[in-house]
Amino acid sequence: MRAPAAPPGSPPASFDRLWAELAAIGRDPAGGYRRHAYTPPELELREWFTATADGYGLEVEEDRAGNLWAWWGAPPPPGVAADRRAVVAGSHLDSVPRGGAFDGPLGVVSGLLAVAELRRRGLTPQRPVAVVAFADEEGSRFGVACAGSRLLTGQLAPDRARSLTDDDGLSMAEALRASGRDPARLGPEPDRVAGIGAYVELHIEQGRGLVDLDAPIGLGSLIRPHGRWRFDLLGRADHAGTTRLSDRDDPMLAQARLVLTARSSAEACGGGGAVATVGRVVVEPNAVNAIPARVAAWLDARADEEADVRAMVARVSAEVGVTPVEESWTPAVQLDAGLAEDLARLLTPRWGALPRLASGAGHDAGILAAAGVPAAMLHVRNPTGGSHAPEEHADRDDCLAGVAALTDVLADLATTP
Amino acid sequence: MRAPAAPPGSPPASFDRLWAELAAIGRDPAGGYRRHAYTPPELELREWFTATADGYGLEVEEDRAGNLWAWWGAPPPPGVAADRRAVVAGSHLDSVPRGGAFDGPLGVVSGLLAVAELRRRGLTPQRPVAVVAFADEEGSRFGVACAGSRLLTGQLAPDRARSLTDDDGLSMAEALRASGRDPARLGPEPDRVAGIGAYVELHIEQGRGLVDLDAPIGLGSLIRPHGRWRFDLLGRADHAGTTRLSDRDDPMLAQARLVLTARSSAEACGGGGAVATVGRVVVEPNAVNAIPARVAAWLDARADEEADVRAMVARVSAEVGVTPVEESWTPAVQLDAGLAEDLARLLTPRWGALPRLASGAGHDAGILAAAGVPAAMLHVRNPTGGSHAPEEHADRDDCLAGVAALTDVLADLATTP
Repeated sequence: MRAPAAPPGSPPASFDRLWAELAAIGRDPAGGYRRHAYTPPELELREWFTATADGYGLEVEEDRAGNLWAWWGAPPPPGVAADRRAVVAGSHLDSVPRGGAFDGPLGVVSGLLAVAELRRRGLTPQRPVAVVAFADEEGSRFGVACAGSRLLTGQLAPDRARSLTDDDGLSMAEALRASGRDPARLGPEPDRVAGIGAYVELHIEQGRGLVDLDAPIGLGSLIRPHGRWRFDLLGRADHAGTTRLSDRDDPMLAQARLVLTARSSAEACGGGGAVATVGRVVVEPNAVNAIPARVAAWLDARADEEADVRAMVARVSAEVGVTPVEESWTPAVQLDAGLAEDLARLLTPRWGALPRLASGAGHDAGILAAAGVPAAMLHVRNPTGGSHAPEEHADRDDCLAGVAALTDVLADLATTP
Repeated sequence: MRAPAAPPGSPPASFDRLWAELAAIGRDPAGGYRRHAYTPPELELREWFTATADGYGLEVEEDRAGNLWAWWGAPPPPGVAADRRAVVAGSHLDSVPRGGAFDGPLGVVSGLLAVAELRRRGLTPQRPVAVVAFADEEGSRFGVACAGSRLLTGQLAPDRARSLTDDDGLSMAEALRASGRDPARLGPEPDRVAGIGAYVELHIEQGRGLVDLDAPIGLGSLIRPHGRWRFDLLGRADHAGTTRLSDRDDPMLAQARLVLTARSSAEACGGGGAVATVGRVVVEPNAVNAIPARVAAWLDARADEEADVRAMVARVSAEVGVTPVEESWTPAVQLDAGLAEDLARLLTPRWGALPRLASGAGHDAGILAAAGVPAAMLHVRNPTGGSHAPEEHADRDDCLAGVAALTDVLADLATTP
């Protein structure tokens, strides 16, 4: 374990210190970060979270889904009254391969700094306050995004989670065991979910919406419907030099048509904003001189309307003649309108009108919202617009604006019945 | 080391025994065999070769390129006269991933059995006779096919070979060192090459030519021109859910066009028989929800005419706007016409007219022929026509026909001035 962190100073100095501590953990040799769930860098981030929260006087516990909770005040008991439900801020610490520094950690760091600042100010909360670091939000290792919040809320069955495997064939159960956890413990915690009065996730924007509007922070409105589908394209392995074209059954040709059909289907989607991506392909045997026996291609499709997403998947499926495996599906989720109004009213005097942003990306906030938790998102401007890439960036001043806004939000929510 | 093998019995019994010994080594969990150069199964095959040849009274040595030679009689000295040059039979022991059992090992086993049978018959050779197991013929680990024979003949520079890397980033130099070899020793052996009077490679046919002609064995005529090109398709990693289509630079789209253009270019090749294959693709970061930063795609292209191969590569290159890296190029190689005539004359009385087969696959015989060694190939019927796949097959009777033919060929060549 790390030594307990020093007590917090002013938000800017503390931000710089925490950010510098995170900067070194889990660098991807190919650029950016690689912090997959339950790998050594991610376990180091968990130790960092625990030590930092401990230094701030918070009580850290891990729930049955692997999520870390740092409590200011006792967690709500089962059946807690509505006016004593917890106020929670947070995000996640894991990353995609070659991911940016901000996606996830910015929300966790901001939550810790906001709580520390409220304690420094001597605020007396009327409700318990927590900072959460959700586990395995990106799903980059085991294929299911938001695995921690889905498990917590019962949207991912423990048996299915345990049997998910990574690229090395290691199951989540084995990965949990290797990190000293008991995979049998995985499961939902309905009382914990019911005890959350409000969840506010601060997150770097994953596009150029705020840049174009010249606004440092914005509010989430909608998590757009999205899903992941795996197409198993089967062919017949043969020698690349000796097998006549007419004798071939080459699944790479289907993969190519799949990629182009996904793109054209998204372009044809009337409403605009529909996207379809093939970012992951696994070829077997993947030898230069062998026609593949099998190509697995993953389709990621999103749109404003669920029907548009379904239509894109159907067109791709028809093109390659394969019914895909739906690895995940997230219906459209409306974040809490009342909570967003409260935040807008609270923050507008200092930060100006906050743009409302629909998110094309999934978030734990969306998973909680789908489970009935009042959830909101605060977005911080990203001048490059890049996401899931090392270019992702937020200026220090904008990060500090986010911390200040989140501090005000938590102060208000923690003292409002 | 294994215990020395028992002395040989009759060819059928010996064939069954050697084949059974090989059957257990290097199974690929996904089917077939996986015997990549200098990996544990391939090192076990080398031990097997050494022990088996030793049991047959042959003297085994490894040359500077990693190829194993089992000698009956002393190797020719430098500057040996033409009528004392060696007669060599052989092939390779390594395989592609999920490869068949016959591609390579059948030629090595047949060579060992033929020499053993000649010794059993009491033949007195007028020239040294050797069985060779060439190293790394498939190039499945380090990307260059026929690496052992290319190194031996000076067609692959030792510095380039040492710096080739496998999928784990391990260099050939490191792999050699890990297997107890000195990578500094890698290099050509012009005297050894000049000392080969004839090389005969027995190989399973990699197509259905002999099946269609109802012939158990055939003769090689030509190694068709072929090469491997790596296209590095660069894009920009971005979030698959939040990046507008118009803002994307997605190299998977270029990969898809490359695959389809390769196929259509081969189909458009007038002469017939042209093939182009994309069997290997590496995506970075290969995450479901990230637009790739880079896709590397390998093109394998072959035709009867070199100009046709070049034209296919040029069309693909123009389609994707990328100049590929030529990882290997093998010009058309005519096997030795006189030697093929000798073999045909010798074998026709017993086996009927031997079909002449142009090979779409590269072989060490082609590398030696390009270096001026008189080289011939004997092909054994493959009823499935499958190659580089577990379905590859030769009937036992056809294998024994191949051994008998090779035995007669070596007897003749070893006693002819």
